[in-house]
Amino acid sequence: MSAHPPENHCAARHLPLPSPFRLTAGGTLIGAEAGVEIYGALNTRRDNAVLLFTGLSASAHAAAHPNDSSPGWWEHMIGKDKGLDLDQLCVICVNSLGSCFGSTGPASIDPATGVKYGATFPELRVEDIASAGQAAVRALGITQLYAVIGASLGGMTALAHAVLFPGAAKRLVTISGALNASTSAIATRSLQREIVGTALRQGGDPASVTNAMRFARKVGVLSYVGGELLSKRFGRDQTEPSAGRLSGTQFEVEHWLDHLADKFAAQFDPWAYWYLSRAMDLFDFSVHGKTPEQTLHDTGTAHLSQAVAKLRLEHCLVIGVHEDTLFPLAQQRDIATALRGAGIATTLVELHSPYGHDAFLTETELFTPLLRDFLKLTGAPTTRAASATTRTSPGPTSSP
Amino acid sequence: MSAHPPENHCAARHLPLPSPFRLTAGGTLIGAEAGVEIYGALNTRRDNAVLLFTGLSASAHAAAHPNDSSPGWWEHMIGKDKGLDLDQLCVICVNSLGSCFGSTGPASIDPATGVKYGATFPELRVEDIASAGQAAVRALGITQLYAVIGASLGGMTALAHAVLFPGAAKRLVTISGALNASTSAIATRSLQREIVGTALRQGGDPASVTNAMRFARKVGVLSYVGGELLSKRFGRDQTEPSAGRLSGTQFEVEHWLDHLADKFAAQFDPWAYWYLSRAMDLFDFSVHGKTPEQTLHDTGTAHLSQAVAKLRLEHCLVIGVHEDTLFPLAQQRDIATALRGAGIATTLVELHSPYGHDAFLTETELFTPLLRDFLKLTGAPTTRAASATTRTSPGPTSSP
Repeated sequence: MSAHPPENHCAARHLPLPSPFRLTAGGTLIGAEAGVEIYGALNTRRDNAVLLFTGLSASAHAAAHPNDSSPGWWEHMIGKDKGLDLDQLCVICVNSLGSCFGSTGPASIDPATGVKYGATFPELRVEDIASAGQAAVRALGITQLYAVIGASLGGMTALAHAVLFPGAAKRLVTISGALNASTSAIATRSLQREIVGTALRQGGDPASVTNAMRFARKVGVLSYVGGELLSKRFGRDQTEPSAGRLSGTQFEVEHWLDHLADKFAAQFDPWAYWYLSRAMDLFDFSVHGKTPEQTLHDTGTAHLSQAVAKLRLEHCLVIGVHEDTLFPLAQQRDIATALRGAGIATTLVELHSPYGHDAFLTETELFTPLLRDFLKLTGAPTTRAASATTRTSPGPTSSP
Repeated sequence: MSAHPPENHCAARHLPLPSPFRLTAGGTLIGAEAGVEIYGALNTRRDNAVLLFTGLSASAHAAAHPNDSSPGWWEHMIGKDKGLDLDQLCVICVNSLGSCFGSTGPASIDPATGVKYGATFPELRVEDIASAGQAAVRALGITQLYAVIGASLGGMTALAHAVLFPGAAKRLVTISGALNASTSAIATRSLQREIVGTALRQGGDPASVTNAMRFARKVGVLSYVGGELLSKRFGRDQTEPSAGRLSGTQFEVEHWLDHLADKFAAQFDPWAYWYLSRAMDLFDFSVHGKTPEQTLHDTGTAHLSQAVAKLRLEHCLVIGVHEDTLFPLAQQRDIATALRGAGIATTLVELHSPYGHDAFLTETELFTPLLRDFLKLTGAPTTRAASATTRTSPGPTSSP
């Protein structure tokens, strides 16, 4: 029935995309691939596949599996009896097109030149990431998805998927996503791109680029987590008294930032970062409601209601976090309002968490029941309350 | 009576500091100066002098005057019938020691070498800025201050002044200041210093240093203003459609950031920025409560109550802004609680303003009555309410 059925166990795969793969802004990719990891198995009715889109920096490795026992980015959320219960669901996590962990992106070799794309990679949009994910699902022989899930950039991608492929999935979960990037998110990411892009264009000296990636990551981290969390965790703790006049790191919070920045700079491709970041800023769900004579990326009047009218979703779960300043709660309410405006049964859950935008990565106890209940295969989701639900994290309990 | 009486009109002055000028962390400066600007005149009782400390990036030019008609950084707050009413007060604004607008700092020539101090400038503390300000006041022949005022770094400096020179002033106004830097403020500033310091140490190529200063300023601006303000002002406005694949600035908010960053990089000395930023992170008011056998900058147990017991202030006004994430409201409450704990009559005012940390620079209508009432020369301040007062800005009304 399918040329590439999901294996009956977790597996990492490289799936070919249609070639040429045409991009929203006009470019094409030849021989492109999507890196995916598959958790769990399709059931006999083949109605339990869940497509999982990631945030900007994540790979498709969402959880450990026999072929890769390292913890995944959503390790505590995927598995038997977890938020994404593998007794019920087959989860397909896809590395974003444009990223650098198995999917084609600026770090890939351009077959036309034999060298890395780098800055010659064609302009990328969130819609392209959604299309590549859908193509990967088709390559696996899956014709109907049960749900599409995504957080952060993944939330944007899940929304793009819903409007590009109406009816392809029945349910949608968006966590700390957005119909479009907020002004301060654009400001923050444009600064990150400027830092990285400047180093890349100035000859691309490896040490300078690494530093630029480190700086950009620190800007990002400071936009993800709340000040209260940093204060509780690190306070004004210092590793040593003020010894040197120009001593560099000294406060514990500086060491923590260094650790995160070093890790990121070592594993993420700078141009991939640039392209994905830019795609986030340019994403605007409402352009999908424009009339045919308007170009898709004309930035004039938006047409949100017409865009959302295209959706063919049965149930949606929208989760936001009060303390998230990058994808603020108001944007989650906007998503829920738009979906409800189109008559889609939508649950909005408003969480409190000192982790801010990163809450979905750490607040396992808050997210697990929400996802498990919403994704039950039989009947309507039990979290389908009409009004917003507010739940609160007990706060950080361990050091990072 | 005085060798250097304030002029009977506004004037910019360079005042010699005691030489050698001994710094808190052990260094000394030879032939150092303080740049000050003086607004209004001492009255016959010589009891109306107000010492004004600035934020990190400001000069002593707080308002226009006959010799310099360019608008000052607190133009709308200083003058006849304004928040600092020059019919009553003589305002002495001092450029911070370590800055680059008339006071000795890393951009000054080291008399021992004949070249700029740069990275050889001795370690600077907020206490040194306070001491230089007090020395400038003494050089003007003023023996008793009516009030000391400061916002942001200036608020820290005003607190340092109060504990280093008990009784030197009767009243204290601190606006968006802090007893010590918050963890996220340390994280933000350490990143800014790392960006600038890396460029400076890598040979100090001017273009790289300028870019680094631009990046650091953008990090700063994003920590000053709230996302709501940016959203209302700029939204997702774009100056042009997405033309080039790697087009740089495109959203209006990016142009705005560029403008602010260019302006800052053109006028501020990179090492001065580095030193002042570092001083802010290291400031901890409570170390002044340590017993003699403890070193001043031992970072162990704090002694806030002993420190505040040293103060000889009659009235204090503490102003904070709910939307300020860099010097959060909790820190303003901490200041007020500490002052009240020492029996000092203290008014805490909690403002709402979308301008966040920058509110004191723009919210003239909110701040004017607060300052004018508190600084009346006769009688107790009329804003001396025991409980917190909350006032709200009508929001931004004009473009930047």
